[in-house]
Formats: sequence, C-alpha cells, structure tokens
Amino acid sequence: MSAYSAEALIECHHKIAPFVHRTPVMRSSLLDRMSGAELYFKCENFQKAGSYKIRGATHALLVKKEAGDLRGIVTHSSGNFAQALSLAARNIGVPAYIVMPESAPEVKKRGVREYGGQIIECAPTLEARESEARRIQMETGAEFIHPSNDPWVMLGQGTACKELLEDVGDLEIVVAPVGGGGLLGGTALSASFFGRECTPVGAEPLVVDDAYRSLKEGRILGNTSTETIADGLKTVLGTYTFPVLQQHVKTIVRVTEGEIVQAMRLVWERMKIVIEPSSAVALAAILKDAGRFAGKKTGIIISGGNVDLQKLPF
Amino acid sequence: MSAYSAEALIECHHKIAPFVHRTPVMRSSLLDRMSGAELYFKCENFQKAGSYKIRGATHALLVKKEAGDLRGIVTHSSGNFAQALSLAARNIGVPAYIVMPESAPEVKKRGVREYGGQIIECAPTLEARESEARRIQMETGAEFIHPSNDPWVMLGQGTACKELLEDVGDLEIVVAPVGGGGLLGGTALSASFFGRECTPVGAEPLVVDDAYRSLKEGRILGNTSTETIADGLKTVLGTYTFPVLQQHVKTIVRVTEGEIVQAMRLVWERMKIVIEPSSAVALAAILKDAGRFAGKKTGIIISGGNVDLQKLPF
Repeated sequence: MSAYSAEALIECHHKIAPFVHRTPVMRSSLLDRMSGAELYFKCENFQKAGSYKIRGATHALLVKKEAGDLRGIVTHSSGNFAQALSLAARNIGVPAYIVMPESAPEVKKRGVREYGGQIIECAPTLEARESEARRIQMETGAEFIHPSNDPWVMLGQGTACKELLEDVGDLEIVVAPVGGGGLLGGTALSASFFGRECTPVGAEPLVVDDAYRSLKEGRILGNTSTETIADGLKTVLGTYTFPVLQQHVKTIVRVTEGEIVQAMRLVWERMKIVIEPSSAVALAAILKDAGRFAGKKTGIIISGGNVDLQKLPF
Repeated sequence: MSAYSAEALIECHHKIAPFVHRTPVMRSSLLDRMSGAELYFKCENFQKAGSYKIRGATHALLVKKEAGDLRGIVTHSSGNFAQALSLAARNIGVPAYIVMPESAPEVKKRGVREYGGQIIECAPTLEARESEARRIQMETGAEFIHPSNDPWVMLGQGTACKELLEDVGDLEIVVAPVGGGGLLGGTALSASFFGRECTPVGAEPLVVDDAYRSLKEGRILGNTSTETIADGLKTVLGTYTFPVLQQHVKTIVRVTEGEIVQAMRLVWERMKIVIEPSSAVALAAILKDAGRFAGKKTGIIISGGNVDLQKLPF
C-alpha cells in the first residue's frame, strides 16, 4: 500500500499541476440556510474537459510514460473519463483510443473527438467494452487505463480534495459521489492525509447502491439496474478502490432519483452553475441526511458539468 | 451632469459594497480561440439576486434614504430589477412594492416573494404598469425608482465595469447588452473614468434594436416588436440613459435570435455557467463582429443568470 502515502499524493499533485486547473471553491448562503451546514463547493465542473477525471487520467499517463516507451493509451468509458483521457493524451503526445457504448450522450462523444481521441463504438455491455479494449491493445500496442480502478488514477482524483483542504483547512466532512470509487477513494485518502479530523462521506443513487451494499457485506457487489440519471455512477467498485473505501469510508448516503433532480435544479437555479446529475448526488445526500451535517464545515466535490442540454430532467 | 463624475462613481461603489458581491472574472480558452479575442467575463450571474441590478437598486435606495424619511419603494419591472429592488429594500429595511405583468416568468415572481417584495400584478402594457405604480405611490407614500432611467441606478450599474477594470486594467473594449441603457450607460461611464482607452460597445437583439436606431437618428425611438428571447432587453432608452449613450457609445452590434441562443448554449456547455439570454447577446455580438474584437482584450458584462429552466431554448 505504499502508493497511498501522503508523499505519493503530494508528488502526484506536483506532477499533474501543469495540466489541470486549480478550480475555485464556491459558497451559497441559500444552500447553507437550506442544509443547516456550512458548504464549500469544489467546482470540478470548471475543470479541463469538464470534470475531475483529467486529474487521474493525467497522472496515470505520466506514470506510464515515465516507465518506458508509451505507444498509445486505451480505455472504455461512457463519459467523462473518455474526454479527460483524450485531452491528457493530447497534452502528453500519445494517441488515445476510446471504447464507448453507442448509446453514450452525443455531447460526450463530441468532447472526445474535439480533444483528439479516437472513438471505437461497441454494444452497451461490460463484456463488449472489455473485449474491444483488449483487441485495440493487441493491434496498436496501446496500454490500458481503467477509468477508476487504478491506483494512479485514484491518487490523481484525490488532488481535488487536497486543494479543497488547502483552501478550507478545517473541513469536518467532505462528500463525494461514488461510482467506480476512484473519486471517493482519492478523496478519502486526501482527507486522511491532509485533513484535521475530516470525515469522508460517499453519496450514491439508491438504484445503483452497490458501494453501500459492498461495504456492508464486506465484498464487491454489482447492481441489478443501471436506471439512474447519474450516468457517471453506474459503474461498480473494483479491486483497488474497494479496499480503500473499506478502510476509510464509514458512511454512504443513498438518494432517490427525485432527490438528485431537485438538488441539481437548486444548484442551476440558485448558484448559476451547470453541474451534472452525478454531482447533484452529493448535495442531495447533504439535504437528505441533514442531521449528520448540521453546523459542520462540509466540502462537496462537484465532480463535473458535462450535460446534454437536449436531455435535461426539468 | 455632475452626478457623472469619477468621484460620484467611486462614492457609489463605496456605498453599495457592503450590500453586493464582488463577482469573479472568468476566462475560457475555447471562447478565446473561437472569437480570436482575449475575453474576460464579469460574472454578474453570480451576483446577489442573480443579476447586476442589485447594484443600481441599492444605490438609488441609499441615496433616497439619505435624503429623508423613506416610507417604501415602488417600481415596475418584468424581471431582474424586481428581485434586486426587493432584496435591496429588505437589506435597508423599507417595504418594496413591485408592479409586474401577469406574464412574467414564474422563477422571477418567486424570487421577488422570497426577497420579501410585494407583487402587484397588472396587464403587460407600459400604460398599465405606470398607472398601477402611480396608484401605489399615492396610497402608500412609497417613492418610485425606475429600473434603468435613473442617474443613481445608472451609476450603480457602472460599478460592475469599475471592478472589471480594477481586475483587468488594460481592457481595450468592454461589451454590455443594452435594453433600457442603465447597464450600458454605467459601463460606458466607468470605461471613460477608469479605463485606459477602453471603448464601450453595446450589444442588442436585432428585433428590438431601438438603441441602435435611436443613436443613429439622434432621438429616442421605440420598438414595434418585443419578440426577443432576451426578455431583459425589451425596454427602451430613457431621458437619462440616452444622452450618456450618445456621448460615450459609438457602436452597437445587433444580433439575431439564433445567434443569441447559440452563444447562450456555448456558455452553458463550455463554461458551465448559467447565463440568461440577455447576457448571451454580448457574446453573440463578439462572435458576429469578430474583426472588431480580434486580438483585443475584451471585457463582457455577463448581466445575469435568472432563467426559467422550464422554458429553455434548447
């Protein structure tokens, strides 16, 4: 577990800093009143490629490049990681091959193309994604990076919380949405390394609550449905992210689809920022489980802002 | 014209500062590339009550309060000024009566009520608004403040550009949308007082191009249509704002409804901020008349972010 030291996270942050934005922290007096907490929004929706994913993608790429001749990079992602890896690869000068389900939102496909990534479409199943990614590895010699279940990716995602703690030193809680666990894992590591008794809390859609159940049962479980509006959170924990969550995360708050949409709408209407449903999950958790956060200095990782304006839920 | 000195604007800024946010200035490398200019977005969508209007409303209220016993304040506004005046009046401790057309967006009515303003609905004509406002003045002893055609309001609106010039000293152009002329007038005054050769440019929807035509003809003209998506810009110049524009503004760029929607969409999708159509008019003007702005350090007043999410144009 030596990869998960404070020193490793500091070095990671130092490495990726030239390639990512240091995003602002926003406040909202209205949402403070509504939640009863003191909220600090870490705005990764303003991040390059529109989400925190560029942090982990850049880190994993730089580590692989340092390790030797890198001929290309391949991943399977339905969304933000695809855009992020395309941009990171362009920044670093290697080709990026992105395996995407045909059903992925058009705005996300366009993003990948604009950042120079090459899209390979496949059926919307995990099996199809994985076999297509393997084929490309074989044909091109590209290396595979998983969107979340990768130690270097997870460390990179933790730099958002590191910055938040640098800006707001005495946070008592930090909330992040959980899908594959890269963001929540990295956030929990940063909270333990750089926080002063800062508790990480996960936020998850009720209909894909695999992380909640996995932590409860002590083993990685799947979901029977993927019918959530929070399209970034359909994935499940992996062999790298699960142990980190087991060690550091005691609480995952689950929210309904209606609560997600309501929180998303609040942020758009009152904070005037565009956030995607996955980000709204974190605020929804705070509004739902208000007792836990009352009077607490609470950080929220606003994970991204890539939304298809043609398919809004309001 | 002594009200329009640099000293008066500095004093105004000092007075209203405790009641307004100093909003951030945002950049976008994508929009820089698209426009060929160097763009600085003054984000009044993050302002209290969601638009720059709180600046002028607060200033006018404070001036009236200093002048003597203030028993209340009344205005007619279909939108942002209504919310702003309600909040400013609550901050300062006087009742606010807001005459609004029945047809005003629900999000704006709700805003007025939340800020403690009392709504009086009327038919959607200028005559109905004015007679209703007069009736309330008579009955309550409240004083009238016009949303734009008022020297104190105009000076207040100029503080947004003053802040922008403090943050980005050597702006060459500053673009503001023009409806009643309060924002463009105040912006032009700030540019002349505090800019180093900073040229103010107005941006106006083609279908309500009264300001463009008024400046050309040398007298205040009306519009035959109000069919623009930029609902904040339907009003016409007045006896206070017109002379300031005549003196300071040489250029107004007119844009089509399609150009407005396209610019609005660009900002939502790529900058991840919620701006209202009136704000998008300014960016649309820059994209349309690209030659004028090429290579120039250009400020844009993003006037507000109050949008009815139920009625989006995309």
